[in-house]
Amino acid sequence: MTSNETAPVAVIGLGDMGAALAGALLKAGHPTTVWNRTPHKADPLVEQGATRAASAAAAVAAAPLVVACVLDDAALRQALGGADLDGRTLVNLTNGTPAHARVAAAWAAEQGADYLDGGIMAVPAMIGGADCRVIYSGPRAVFDEHAPTLGAFGEARYAGADPGLAALHDLALLSGMYGLISGFLHAVAMVRSAGEKSGEFTTAELVPWVSGMTAILPTLAEQVDSGDFATEGSNLGMQAAGYANILDAARDAGLSTELMAPLGTLMNRYLEAGGAPGNDLSALVGMLHTTGA
Amino acid sequence: MTSNETAPVAVIGLGDMGAALAGALLKAGHPTTVWNRTPHKADPLVEQGATRAASAAAAVAAAPLVVACVLDDAALRQALGGADLDGRTLVNLTNGTPAHARVAAAWAAEQGADYLDGGIMAVPAMIGGADCRVIYSGPRAVFDEHAPTLGAFGEARYAGADPGLAALHDLALLSGMYGLISGFLHAVAMVRSAGEKSGEFTTAELVPWVSGMTAILPTLAEQVDSGDFATEGSNLGMQAAGYANILDAARDAGLSTELMAPLGTLMNRYLEAGGAPGNDLSALVGMLHTTGA
Ligand SMILES: NC(=O)c1ccc[n+]([C@@H]2O[C@H](COP(=O)([O-])OP(=O)(O)OC[C@H]3O[C@@H](n4cnc5c(N)ncnc54)[C@H](OP(=O)(O)O)[C@@H]3O)[C@@H](O)[C@H]2O)c1
Ligand SMILES: NC(=O)c1ccc[n+]([C@@H]2O[C@H](COP(=O)([O-])OP(=O)(O)OC[C@H]3O[C@@H](n4cnc5c(N)ncnc54)[C@H](OP(=O)(O)O)[C@@H]3O)[C@@H](O)[C@H]2O)c1
Repeated sequence: MTSNETAPVAVIGLGDMGAALAGALLKAGHPTTVWNRTPHKADPLVEQGATRAASAAAAVAAAPLVVACVLDDAALRQALGGADLDGRTLVNLTNGTPAHARVAAAWAAEQGADYLDGGIMAVPAMIGGADCRVIYSGPRAVFDEHAPTLGAFGEARYAGADPGLAALHDLALLSGMYGLISGFLHAVAMVRSAGEKSGEFTTAELVPWVSGMTAILPTLAEQVDSGDFATEGSNLGMQAAGYANILDAARDAGLSTELMAPLGTLMNRYLEAGGAPGNDLSALVGMLHTTGA
Repeated sequence: MTSNETAPVAVIGLGDMGAALAGALLKAGHPTTVWNRTPHKADPLVEQGATRAASAAAAVAAAPLVVACVLDDAALRQALGGADLDGRTLVNLTNGTPAHARVAAAWAAEQGADYLDGGIMAVPAMIGGADCRVIYSGPRAVFDEHAPTLGAFGEARYAGADPGLAALHDLALLSGMYGLISGFLHAVAMVRSAGEKSGEFTTAELVPWVSGMTAILPTLAEQVDSGDFATEGSNLGMQAAGYANILDAARDAGLSTELMAPLGTLMNRYLEAGGAPGNDLSALVGMLHTTGA
């Protein structure tokens, strides 16, 4: 384990997130070489002490540890297409699927590079702060070697040797967040339909309520694991009846039900298929497994 | 304001929630008369000191304050159809829409009854505890008169004179919760597809992550109110690209995308319609307003 702030790092991609990552490395004292397709995005980092590379290949040549964070998997291939990764460690923090990660790991191996995939559980402003967590997967020894450097971004969490595991956890966590956001968007549209502002409703009512309800998720998760879905007080029959009111009220207010309708449909499908009305929402997880394809 | 624990109350409906409400009234010292369609559900409450009424009409006759909490609006009409509400105050804690509340308020007025509509923001186990909030709407004086008694359930929050406002806030808050739940169900299905348990993932990863992300909702709400949707670091173009990975990974894992697909569709519709890719998710609220019907 080489824990020192003098380990040089190259950062490929200086969008909102890549720039935050490079900034955190500079702040931690790492000699940092940066490259972005649109060059001017490197300017503020160069002012902070970064070295500008003329190409992605030049950036890769400048440091044994290469952190890539571009838009998506296609952008990653385009950016690194001409680079020689032999002997490098590529840490890919670009959002992707487990399948993307496995293909990228194989491609890196062919070139003689070590590979870690990562999922950043933070927005750019959180990078380098106590609330930032980055999930990594790939060979344990490679993670251990670079964990001290990667710690500049926030907590480095190891998910396992299968390179796809970081993406799996990342996308699962993002699902949780985007579910929350879907509910928020619908909720705010509802109160605005009555002429109310979003801000006070969100701060004084929605955030405390959702925070409280987040605390019931471990109970639902235990039910999923045990297969005993019996509710502790909120049966699905009652919830399906109330859910119809959410959709009816939205329609009455001239709002689309598109974000909320699917969970109601799932509840009804469960009950119509003979699912126990005394079960809790946890019983619906099994309904998401499709038969093949 | 008559603040005393000796004010008698009738409770109509002793499902999981009605029973919790009656229990809280008994605990606070109120003489409590109870009725439920299926009579045996009153037994544990009678053991705790409640008086059993032979009919809903008899329960209503027994107390000036009537709290109703049954499955839905249709059940409320059936339960109270034969009762004489003249001179009573009906507090309807049955889940319903703003339209249901307004119709019920008018019906109560015709009978010479005062009416408050309420939305319970808690599960039954929370009733009577510090984390329970109930939102009420209807005439301020009626709320003020009964707030001390209603305080037995938890914090009593007044939403306004329009009887539909409590239901509006209730359903908006439930939307937030059900969005969270939708994301949770999908997230758990994803990690389980890789053979992992739900419990540890939920407790160690999902709950802290979602709790952190809940903190960004006030910023998004301010953007909605101001109409300035420019992101602070997570642009919609990037988010739409990442969102496709959530759906692709779910399909790869043999999972239905039904709970997650709609937000991705909304993002894409926004961008395809020429919405600014540099905006944040807050810009999507306006997309939920349908043109009529
Ligand atoms: N921002 C967040 O909140 C957040 C959070 C967690 C994870 N992430 C992930 O971090 C990654 C970057 O996000 P971001 O917020 O930095 O997005 P962004 O601000 O939109 O930046 C996108 C980056 O990708 C580059 N890029 C796009 N297509 C390219 C191509 N064909 N070849 C080379 N470079 C290309 C862009 O270069 P140009 O400047 O030349 O366009 C830019 O550097 C994404 O995978 C995202 O999912 C972001
Ligand atoms: N449980 C929660 O977490 C929760 C949270 C907030 C709000 N709420 C709301 O509270 C209300 C009650 O929920 P709950 O959890 O108590 O549901 P529940 O346990 O399923 O009980 C339903 C109640 O409605 C009664 N009922 C149904 N149809 C009826 C009819 N036609 N005539 C007379 N009574 C009828 C039932 O009587 P029987 O016993 O005879 O069937 C029972 O008392 C719902 O509107 C729900 O949305 C519940």
